[in-house]
Amino acid sequence: MKFGGTSVASADDIKRAARRIVNARESGKQVVAVLSARGKTTDELVAAAYEISPRPLEREMDMLLSTGERISCALCAMAIHDMGHNAISLTGSQAGIVTDSSHTKARILDVRADRIHAALKEDRIVLVAGFQGVSGDSKDVTTLGRGGSDTTAVALAAALDAEVCEIYTDVSGVFSADPRIVPEARKLPYVSFEEMLEMSSSGAGVLQLRSVEYARNHGVQIHCRSSFEDGPGTLVLAEDATMEQPMVTAVTHAYEARVTLTGLKDEPGVAGLVFGALADANVNVDMIIQNEPVSDDQKADLSFTIARDDLQKAIDVLGELDAADEIETDPEVGKVSIVGAGMRSHPGVAAKVFRTLGDNEINIEMISTSPIKISCVVAADRVPEAVRKIHEAFDLGADAVREEDPSGEHRPRVTS
Amino acid sequence: MKFGGTSVASADDIKRAARRIVNARESGKQVVAVLSARGKTTDELVAAAYEISPRPLEREMDMLLSTGERISCALCAMAIHDMGHNAISLTGSQAGIVTDSSHTKARILDVRADRIHAALKEDRIVLVAGFQGVSGDSKDVTTLGRGGSDTTAVALAAALDAEVCEIYTDVSGVFSADPRIVPEARKLPYVSFEEMLEMSSSGAGVLQLRSVEYARNHGVQIHCRSSFEDGPGTLVLAEDATMEQPMVTAVTHAYEARVTLTGLKDEPGVAGLVFGALADANVNVDMIIQNEPVSDDQKADLSFTIARDDLQKAIDVLGELDAADEIETDPEVGKVSIVGAGMRSHPGVAAKVFRTLGDNEINIEMISTSPIKISCVVAADRVPEAVRKIHEAFDLGADAVREEDPSGEHRPRVTS
Repeated sequence: MKFGGTSVASADDIKRAARRIVNARESGKQVVAVLSARGKTTDELVAAAYEISPRPLEREMDMLLSTGERISCALCAMAIHDMGHNAISLTGSQAGIVTDSSHTKARILDVRADRIHAALKEDRIVLVAGFQGVSGDSKDVTTLGRGGSDTTAVALAAALDAEVCEIYTDVSGVFSADPRIVPEARKLPYVSFEEMLEMSSSGAGVLQLRSVEYARNHGVQIHCRSSFEDGPGTLVLAEDATMEQPMVTAVTHAYEARVTLTGLKDEPGVAGLVFGALADANVNVDMIIQNEPVSDDQKADLSFTIARDDLQKAIDVLGELDAADEIETDPEVGKVSIVGAGMRSHPGVAAKVFRTLGDNEINIEMISTSPIKISCVVAADRVPEAVRKIHEAFDLGADAVREEDPSGEHRPRVTS
Repeated sequence: MKFGGTSVASADDIKRAARRIVNARESGKQVVAVLSARGKTTDELVAAAYEISPRPLEREMDMLLSTGERISCALCAMAIHDMGHNAISLTGSQAGIVTDSSHTKARILDVRADRIHAALKEDRIVLVAGFQGVSGDSKDVTTLGRGGSDTTAVALAAALDAEVCEIYTDVSGVFSADPRIVPEARKLPYVSFEEMLEMSSSGAGVLQLRSVEYARNHGVQIHCRSSFEDGPGTLVLAEDATMEQPMVTAVTHAYEARVTLTGLKDEPGVAGLVFGALADANVNVDMIIQNEPVSDDQKADLSFTIARDDLQKAIDVLGELDAADEIETDPEVGKVSIVGAGMRSHPGVAAKVFRTLGDNEINIEMISTSPIKISCVVAADRVPEAVRKIHEAFDLGADAVREEDPSGEHRPRVTS
């Protein structure tokens, strides 16, 4: 069981999480729970660091930030104890989460769960501080990057061969679109790992991308649920080849910034130069489009999208690089994506997306596709409308696509 | 160097501490600094625990509270880095502070400073999270109790064979009385370990009692200094037999509560019963007075003082015990103490103290003495006056007693 920051924010929230953990224990299950830092704790610690230093040392940032999850675990252990159960909190290091030494974005190398196994054997509930580990070589505290607690939970579920990895958040599952934009969006009873990967990488915030990758690679079934209400959430699980795939599962969106380099020298290696420099500056590039020059004396144009927070850094890096005649930027773009494992076998989805946007006079600035996803970059202020229109066009609202299937044995056939 | 909570409270405070550490390093010294939790952090964490549970688990309390000092160390390492030096923060466990497993009041068993030595060898400044360690057997995080960072600093100074252990606080040293009560109180250039022990246990808050014991037992010289101003503070060091002792060094005071049991059965073991029960409830008893019964059919009276916060707990414990006819309590008493290594060889100090209080019509409720201390319990509202009058009677004000002696080679002779 993993509880996110909003699920442990107040004392009442912690007691609610403790109650869920205790209920699971009392239903006969052995429970290991991973907790995030409370509410805004991590943000406050980050702010404290930047109050001290414009470029906080990464090793020390990890030492600093790892305290937040420990606080949550210690407090939750106290609450569980008052409910008559025996709980023990463990730091990432004590829980055996061994990582590489890439501070602030460490990757899990190994889970040495001896101490967890011992505690479970003593009939204890184990609470593990999420988001952190210990580097195998230097024995320093490391963190897994933002949202890393999901990865901690999935990695422990894999190492302990858990029945399921339950991720508790402030939303009740994975939806066919953001319900704040599309009120008729419906909760999906299940999505495949592949779909979830595409959704996580295109704006669905409910699960961290790396945790989904880890779950897919290790076959860990995830159950996304609400901390605040009962009832089933969304299962994330492996695709079953015998089942009919729904054509389209969900519409996601994200706000980004676009950078266009005009008059780029069209010579081998220039793209590598640009994206290498951005990578060195830790700027993650999302979509990339390069226009080939029409005639020999023309130069190429290169457009890409990045997180809005990284825009100034990107401008600085590219300015120094001096590889293009001009750098144009647009901080007000959005990306609307449609995801569905069934797209693979259903041609015509892309055409329908483009037609829907065109009918509504929403201009498409960039397009990228994968076998199960189509993404369009549009002006930021048109994003909500684009999401609503596509959601409507594919009839993704309540009762339209998937039936609830608690047995998980088969999926309803979908017709488009 | 050890910096207390007020010395690392704000970002500016942390930078000021970092600057002092860097200055010491640049003067050619190897520096290990111990930091406390920032400002009110520990109080806030304690409050968070009591918001969850009326009786927080001690193991989890240690996990919770140990985060405060780690935050201070990580932030200070960032600040030092920005000043062009290489710093590394270590948790108590990483620094090799091995304790017993008495959670919330662990005692240091060993200091395995390998990692500190290695870091110093690499020309790094080492920052150690105070107040915490790791239990030798269970590998759990432990804490040393309130004020434990002083003990961490002294223990590291002993283990590393440091030249001096500098304790930085918001006061500039040890004074002949609390300057808030006695404006003419003077800063003492030095006090002996024995005097400091008596002063710490009788109200002087500048150094934690256990740290002074540890320093005396391991011969660690302590220098109490101000974080906020320059100039020497107070040296705490071993008495030198060849020196003349000042008769009286300081007047200290503390506010307490008094409990009197009347009609106590005068039989062997009854005192053991009473104080055993209080000890089990973690109530620390300070002064104790028992009046023998005058005739055979009379019962004994027993009076003692405790911390005010413990009064209700003591009343509960004693009520259950039912060993006395009546329990009288006075939550409004104070203890005024006069401390001086020279008292040993100067009779008449006690008489002068009693006479001074009597001349000012301050009633003495209880008296206790040690070879170098006399304590009187008086009504709480008479404490400031009692301190002032005794300070005046023994002429402890500026220039009266000790001359500054930066060489530390000899102490001025004092005449009374």
